[in-house]
Amino acid sequence: MRDFLPADKHHRERVLETIRGRYRAHGFDEIETPVLEDYGRLHAGFVGDNEKLGFSVLRRGLDPDGIRAAADRPEALSDLGLRYDLTVPLARFYASHRAELPNVFRAIQIGPVWRAERPQKGRFRQFVQCDIDIIGDGSPRAEAELLVATLDAVAALGLHDASIRINDRRILDWMLERVGIAAPERPGVLIAIDKLDKIGVDGVVDELRERGIAQAAVAALGDLLQRAPRTGADSARDAIAAALPAGAPPELVDHVEAVASAVRAGSERAALVFDPFLVRGMGYYTGTIFELAHPAVSYSLGGGGRYDGMVGRFLGHEVPAVGFSIGFERIVDLVRPMGDHQDRAVVLVHDPDVPLEEVIAAKTVLLATCTRVRVERRTRNMKGLLAQGAADGYTHFVSLAAGGEPGSIQMRPLAPKGTTDGD
Amino acid sequence: MRDFLPADKHHRERVLETIRGRYRAHGFDEIETPVLEDYGRLHAGFVGDNEKLGFSVLRRGLDPDGIRAAADRPEALSDLGLRYDLTVPLARFYASHRAELPNVFRAIQIGPVWRAERPQKGRFRQFVQCDIDIIGDGSPRAEAELLVATLDAVAALGLHDASIRINDRRILDWMLERVGIAAPERPGVLIAIDKLDKIGVDGVVDELRERGIAQAAVAALGDLLQRAPRTGADSARDAIAAALPAGAPPELVDHVEAVASAVRAGSERAALVFDPFLVRGMGYYTGTIFELAHPAVSYSLGGGGRYDGMVGRFLGHEVPAVGFSIGFERIVDLVRPMGDHQDRAVVLVHDPDVPLEEVIAAKTVLLATCTRVRVERRTRNMKGLLAQGAADGYTHFVSLAAGGEPGSIQMRPLAPKGTTDGD
Repeated sequence: MRDFLPADKHHRERVLETIRGRYRAHGFDEIETPVLEDYGRLHAGFVGDNEKLGFSVLRRGLDPDGIRAAADRPEALSDLGLRYDLTVPLARFYASHRAELPNVFRAIQIGPVWRAERPQKGRFRQFVQCDIDIIGDGSPRAEAELLVATLDAVAALGLHDASIRINDRRILDWMLERVGIAAPERPGVLIAIDKLDKIGVDGVVDELRERGIAQAAVAALGDLLQRAPRTGADSARDAIAAALPAGAPPELVDHVEAVASAVRAGSERAALVFDPFLVRGMGYYTGTIFELAHPAVSYSLGGGGRYDGMVGRFLGHEVPAVGFSIGFERIVDLVRPMGDHQDRAVVLVHDPDVPLEEVIAAKTVLLATCTRVRVERRTRNMKGLLAQGAADGYTHFVSLAAGGEPGSIQMRPLAPKGTTDGD
Repeated sequence: MRDFLPADKHHRERVLETIRGRYRAHGFDEIETPVLEDYGRLHAGFVGDNEKLGFSVLRRGLDPDGIRAAADRPEALSDLGLRYDLTVPLARFYASHRAELPNVFRAIQIGPVWRAERPQKGRFRQFVQCDIDIIGDGSPRAEAELLVATLDAVAALGLHDASIRINDRRILDWMLERVGIAAPERPGVLIAIDKLDKIGVDGVVDELRERGIAQAAVAALGDLLQRAPRTGADSARDAIAAALPAGAPPELVDHVEAVASAVRAGSERAALVFDPFLVRGMGYYTGTIFELAHPAVSYSLGGGGRYDGMVGRFLGHEVPAVGFSIGFERIVDLVRPMGDHQDRAVVLVHDPDVPLEEVIAAKTVLLATCTRVRVERRTRNMKGLLAQGAADGYTHFVSLAAGGEPGSIQMRPLAPKGTTDGD
């Protein structure tokens, strides 16, 4: 977990504002849920090992007997947990507020989530997620709106060369069946395929053998992995035909094709790649899945997919849902600092003997025409003081002496950062 | 803990943006600290009973023996806690990053805090605080900048009639000594005085008697309470003379007087009231204390004060500090919804048979000139659909039919909220 100093915090807020603004333009509405959720509801969405990653809140008012009784069922120690993503809380929110929301609900959620992972480079136990989700639309329009909005938001951040990899869990499933991998073996096979970018085709084939997958199935799958397209095709249909055995279910191919064409219609520069071996880790995806890539980095900048079963867990009947989560902590480092345009920010330096009312009155006058005013008492190290101001984005300075003429404030430009040494 | 639906969330974000913008203009810089702090450091700032109000996080990986061993020292169950205010984390932050910060550091912090209170009307277990603090300036300039910035922020929200009540903990202390109340009795007496607004002078006097305070001291204090000014005076000096026994320490009177004059210089409409019986609950205040009031409500909208001892607990040597915390949850309900000016927000209604690429292409065209575009599939209940759009702040609608002329999109105004019934 990290502290953010002023320059970093400002940059993060600017990036969030940009993303929030573009998503809002595309018809999404921001909501907020509490950071703490009921323990039971939170873990209704968890799959297997992930439960260990949640931070749990200690029950208040536990007495010694209560603690001893919990020794063999530690879940009794906790009634609330910190959210580990924004999708489970959204499903809970939607079930609670269904009647107050539009039929097709387009949600923005921006906020921190927590995972009790061992700290390591580039991984944090508290990090920000920026999610958009569309609930109540099972058609490819939902995927198209999500992806066009995300490409627009990412372009507004100056990341113009972003691209989307798209696949469908059901296509993956069909393909595994087609090469002869039985249903119980498929989750393990998907784990191996998910490592394709890291360990290559040979690595995946080795792992499949180690897992005891039948020789013929491994060979067929290895062959498909070899010929999978790694760049975009003119249409998803062509890409699918090139990548998969014949006979893929036409309704699945149509869905991907419809999304791909619509994204091209909404986003001129959109590079959309059908990737029949994109897996995405989360167990709750049921259909389309996608990932955001950028040539500057080897890891994905976000992703998402359809999770048509999730809302039903809370609501009692199924509602189609699809979401996209921007990897904010990854993207924020790629975005260049966004300057405050037309920003006249002034350091007001006053002599120690200027009466306080005059200092405050001068600050107030400057505030009428300047975006920011920082007050400083004059010190011997004026150069250091002004250099600090310049480093913090201030553009001008003003000196205020005791008994100075009122109205005679003279504004002088500050040397920009890095150029004050030679003054 | 609450969910926020789109209209509420948007309003909250607009109010926060306004506060953040004004504070930034006044030379404050935003920082962020993690929501979870080390348990021991967090409670280093706690006074007495407050510790019970903290949410604590369960240690990961506890085994049955570890849990049993914790029965008699429950603090062993927890290593982290959710912050219950933003002041303790700021002091910890300042001690960690001292070398990277300006000599006089003006901080903005905006974020949620948690208190494990029993839920009741108007009190929440998760709520947002907006704090500004100045660390490293012991002069009245610090108080003046805090208060002028806060009055400006509150005025920018449309709350022009806000006023500030100001006092100094040391003046209170001197006065209690002067009327003959011994040091060990003073904390209890302050608790009684803090209820003045609720129970009146007679109520306070009764409570002092019940606490066993000497008859003469109660009479003298009751007399002071009677004559205390409840409105502003021309100068703090006059107000103090009117309110207190003669002989108040001049350096304390000078400090309050300097703050009051400077705030008047910086804020034309500032109503500043010296209130010799303002107490403020927090145990860590050491000097000036203040509260923000507004005629629309009987409770305070925020407050703060000097806490010169707090940073020293983390840093090892004392550094002057003063802060102001806006009661965001209270203020947000008083602020009128802020409209998006020049907002052309469009509902794009398409017939079900319009190809998806055309829908997305039309949305993209509209985005170039409109601030928001929401896509809807045409239904029989067009009236309901458009009424929902108007209620959500959309101003226009566009119909898209299959085979329509490209470029023939016609934008029509939506009836504003509440006027669609008579259509």
